[in-house]
Amino acid sequence: MTTRLASERILTGFKGERSGYYFDIRKRLFDKKTSFQHIQIFDAHGFGRIMLLDNEIMTTEWDGFVYPEMIMHPALTAHPNPKTVGIIGGGDGGSVTEACKHPDVEQVILCEIDEEVINAAREYLPELAKGLGDARAKCVFEEGSTWLEKQKGCFDMIAVDGTDPVGPGVCLFEEKFYRRAQAALKPGGICVQQVESPFYSLRPDGMTFELSFEEIIQRARSVFKNVRVYCATIPTYLGAYWAFLYASDGELPMTPRPERWDAIKGQTRYYTPDVHQAAFVLPPFVQELVAAK
Amino acid sequence: MTTRLASERILTGFKGERSGYYFDIRKRLFDKKTSFQHIQIFDAHGFGRIMLLDNEIMTTEWDGFVYPEMIMHPALTAHPNPKTVGIIGGGDGGSVTEACKHPDVEQVILCEIDEEVINAAREYLPELAKGLGDARAKCVFEEGSTWLEKQKGCFDMIAVDGTDPVGPGVCLFEEKFYRRAQAALKPGGICVQQVESPFYSLRPDGMTFELSFEEIIQRARSVFKNVRVYCATIPTYLGAYWAFLYASDGELPMTPRPERWDAIKGQTRYYTPDVHQAAFVLPPFVQELVAAK
Repeated sequence: MTTRLASERILTGFKGERSGYYFDIRKRLFDKKTSFQHIQIFDAHGFGRIMLLDNEIMTTEWDGFVYPEMIMHPALTAHPNPKTVGIIGGGDGGSVTEACKHPDVEQVILCEIDEEVINAAREYLPELAKGLGDARAKCVFEEGSTWLEKQKGCFDMIAVDGTDPVGPGVCLFEEKFYRRAQAALKPGGICVQQVESPFYSLRPDGMTFELSFEEIIQRARSVFKNVRVYCATIPTYLGAYWAFLYASDGELPMTPRPERWDAIKGQTRYYTPDVHQAAFVLPPFVQELVAAK
Repeated sequence: MTTRLASERILTGFKGERSGYYFDIRKRLFDKKTSFQHIQIFDAHGFGRIMLLDNEIMTTEWDGFVYPEMIMHPALTAHPNPKTVGIIGGGDGGSVTEACKHPDVEQVILCEIDEEVINAAREYLPELAKGLGDARAKCVFEEGSTWLEKQKGCFDMIAVDGTDPVGPGVCLFEEKFYRRAQAALKPGGICVQQVESPFYSLRPDGMTFELSFEEIIQRARSVFKNVRVYCATIPTYLGAYWAFLYASDGELPMTPRPERWDAIKGQTRYYTPDVHQAAFVLPPFVQELVAAK
């Protein structure tokens, strides 16, 4: 279903959004409305291959390496011995691919609500999705929070790689969800979640999402004993300076372990142990949001 | 000349660019074609007030604090005693405003080719531009490289806050220009320049600008004895992860000085001494570009 078009201009953004990215496309590679969402993959000027879900940019060939490296490697390099990893969302396969770079990781379970995202990523973004073919990776197709409730004490790391807190995506940012994540962790296990850009909280015309960055942090803090935040720069996510929740009921390991870095060294384009530590250094405006009560 | 429009959609980007930001506007506040460029200021959905030069985003009310803080404070906090500062470009006044936060700075000279930019910023972005009214600040209206040639041994810091290396902007990225900057510095003086986003060098369809990030660094290194690069995240600059050249013929001071930070503490929203040091930590893909020969 590859259709060649003379030129078509795509404006990204949620319905009603009045700013965002635009791009002209070279080819429409995939376009399908599933029971859950509208999946589109294009070959786009400026971005290379690009996947949109409900018109929001999920990943691009251009900068798509940053997000999966930075949601997975800080926890997997700081945790002394992560064997089991659960990923909620992340149907493009990037997070699984990064987890599978760690030779000591024994099992990676991806819970994605929409099998069609995985199929599309495997076909059109094969480099990003290649970890889905790893023998240690397994996919389940279920709503993330419901699935998580059944996983008690299973994981050394949980990555919540969901969409933004808007519409049905809000359920992955509820206190109930955090309690389930907490219960699904082994002792000392770490929960990492993409929690949007703190820059959204500064928007002169108010928030785009239903929950602000600072509200999400407050909710997580009401559940987990220890909560920290780190950031990475993802150019094609509007706001760009993207935050990750880093939470545990155990003491949070804050130092990358040299032996765990050695095992993945040379396989990353953004992550290093120095980048890891720099990512926890937050500008004053972010510190204020994190501390907000 | 405030015109109220029902709604108008602006697509930013250089002529021929096929991706970038779009926004809907609430009000067109200023629109003028000068001898040098097309200046536009809007009140825009998502961004607040926004200034475009030749259709490229220069600053916004949303994220416009990051760039001027990060072009000025690293050098002005690490240099032991900066008294005189020269700024080339930067007609929005943000860099002057940040320089004037340092009580020990005695003189800030802004050389801007287009007086109209300064006038428009003072009227429509008064908070950003307020340093232009400081008694220590002086504006000259001249082409930057020609002006710099006449300033021998004048400055403890030079900030090159110009447009991107495209069209006439390329002259601020030539070896000749770097030699003039070198000669205009006092011993131990530091030259800081915005040098675009290293992410541009990864674009699947090639460069947007006439000079790549890595070519600029190579040129600077052929002139200055010591060259380093640091980055900051500016969401509305396409590429977002924005690089700054940090160059000197003297030993480059790499540590923020506590007494200099104390003098500006509480007046920044992005910069801190920790952010300063984290900004020099570069991901592997940037390290490779910086090292390219």
